[in-house]
Amino acid sequence: MTNTRYDVLALGNAIVDVLARVEDDLLVSEKLAKGSMALIDEARAKALYEKIGPSVYVSGGSAANTCAGVASFGARAAFIGKVRDDELGTAFTHDIRAAGVHFTTPPAHEGPSTASSTILVTPDGERTMNTFLGASQHLGPDDVDPELVRASGTIYLEGYLFDPPEAMNAFQRAADIAHEAGRKVAITLSDSFCVERHRADFLAFIRAKKVDLVFANEHEAKALYETADFATALEALRNDASEAVVTRSELGAVFVKGQDTVHVPAHPIERVVDATGAGDLYAAGVLTGFARGFDFAQSGRLGALAAAEILSHIGARPQRNLASFAAENGFLGS
Amino acid sequence: MTNTRYDVLALGNAIVDVLARVEDDLLVSEKLAKGSMALIDEARAKALYEKIGPSVYVSGGSAANTCAGVASFGARAAFIGKVRDDELGTAFTHDIRAAGVHFTTPPAHEGPSTASSTILVTPDGERTMNTFLGASQHLGPDDVDPELVRASGTIYLEGYLFDPPEAMNAFQRAADIAHEAGRKVAITLSDSFCVERHRADFLAFIRAKKVDLVFANEHEAKALYETADFATALEALRNDASEAVVTRSELGAVFVKGQDTVHVPAHPIERVVDATGAGDLYAAGVLTGFARGFDFAQSGRLGALAAAEILSHIGARPQRNLASFAAENGFLGS
Repeated sequence: MTNTRYDVLALGNAIVDVLARVEDDLLVSEKLAKGSMALIDEARAKALYEKIGPSVYVSGGSAANTCAGVASFGARAAFIGKVRDDELGTAFTHDIRAAGVHFTTPPAHEGPSTASSTILVTPDGERTMNTFLGASQHLGPDDVDPELVRASGTIYLEGYLFDPPEAMNAFQRAADIAHEAGRKVAITLSDSFCVERHRADFLAFIRAKKVDLVFANEHEAKALYETADFATALEALRNDASEAVVTRSELGAVFVKGQDTVHVPAHPIERVVDATGAGDLYAAGVLTGFARGFDFAQSGRLGALAAAEILSHIGARPQRNLASFAAENGFLGS
Repeated sequence: MTNTRYDVLALGNAIVDVLARVEDDLLVSEKLAKGSMALIDEARAKALYEKIGPSVYVSGGSAANTCAGVASFGARAAFIGKVRDDELGTAFTHDIRAAGVHFTTPPAHEGPSTASSTILVTPDGERTMNTFLGASQHLGPDDVDPELVRASGTIYLEGYLFDPPEAMNAFQRAADIAHEAGRKVAITLSDSFCVERHRADFLAFIRAKKVDLVFANEHEAKALYETADFATALEALRNDASEAVVTRSELGAVFVKGQDTVHVPAHPIERVVDATGAGDLYAAGVLTGFARGFDFAQSGRLGALAAAEILSHIGARPQRNLASFAAENGFLGS
């Protein structure tokens, strides 16, 4: 296996987040499921925008957030995703490159505008997302640069890419090229509603061993196996996936691989300001740890640190250097 | 004097802030004066954007921030300022209306894009602003609705409006209409470099009694009277202005009116995350207090509370309800 240029190459939706604090009432009146991601069209996005308070605009996108986290830890990250050549697309491109992530997917010059997600943050810090996929729907197999895939240690696929039909092909293509090159393929299940929409595809993809490492939170794992019992979901995932990491918010995370099981506690935090991106940053820590040859316990601690940082402020991209934060918490520099 | 529809009507530049954390080195290499506001053109704005890290995009503009603060305290605010009909203009308009501020200035349909300020936040929490005035340069006297001015208790003028030539006329017109209607006129000196650029105009405006209440920070007051001595500047201001409020960061603020002098301490804070908007929000608290008939000490306490809230997070608009924050600190509801 040749050397890698990137530790992690992620494929995902390229999204700018529009975050606003709201009361729980709005979720009720708008019939929104707290903590979930709903797909909306542009008209709905505009209507919802009229109903929310003053907003903060920050680059987001699940896998893109993970890349920003990996880079902040000092590891090497690249991202593939589709924006339009508009103001939001310019902001997304600036922010991910400024975070130190390699990003060269050409923007669309026509069609819908850059994707945005209207994220409602309730007083408990939970986030409820409403995503207009826009230009990111047009990510296709041609956007997957085979050289880039072969040059990356792990290919990380965002489960949300099961939503836009063309992206699914990009996704499959990247996974196949990666495996041919002897690289590792990881996937995140992204959201329990996304799992409901694409359960058969997710299971087929995992069971066909197109993926080596599965990231999920407890709700997504349960949704995948249609069970309310966490232990049942965990055992099914252990059986289907080579490796899996299941996060459980303040209960920490569970890593499973064959008969091995490792529990990693959450990092203590004072108050959850905004949960947006917590799962994405957990994955960033774990992927960074794996790239450094860390074991499950150490990699899980990096994930927990990154999640704690992101929970402490508005927005899903780190606001402080994660390498320094890790060093302060006893991790030696890379 | 007839009843008012608004407690505060502010005129200012309509700006979207692009905030990024930077190291002090960047200020040195870019020859930027820490804590100041520099005017830049669009090319410079683009070049600077390429040099900064991942950014957070939040509506700003000094007087607009003040309006958002006044509304958050539960008082009635209106704003006059010029955006373009582009994405940033849409965001600015959404955010100020969603904050509960009356804003109906028609956007420009041609000419430069909506104003933006590239704000560099150093590790000490200080902010250094680089403003491309864009569409806000085209705020003119025709944008001043006389009915709106007459219906507002206090007209608050942003000193930065001395920069764009047309806005100066809007400014003068609003002040004249307000005084004819028996309303109060307030002005903020905005920035010491702005004072340097327009010292004669500021002094003429204040000495001609076009303004009743002057807001300044210590640096601006010293710049206005070309002195390094705070006491000298304060006495000169006391002599020239009917009323003045001078803020001194952690030293609190001084209110002067004729022979009266009232010192008000700063509200204690754990850590300055981002100083952007602290002065704007101090003014919001004071204007709210005055509208409620509070004395200097009480109004200053409201100002100090609002400034403390804004110093605790990224961005110059309140992230929590200031009326609740005031109630928690012993102020009775309005």
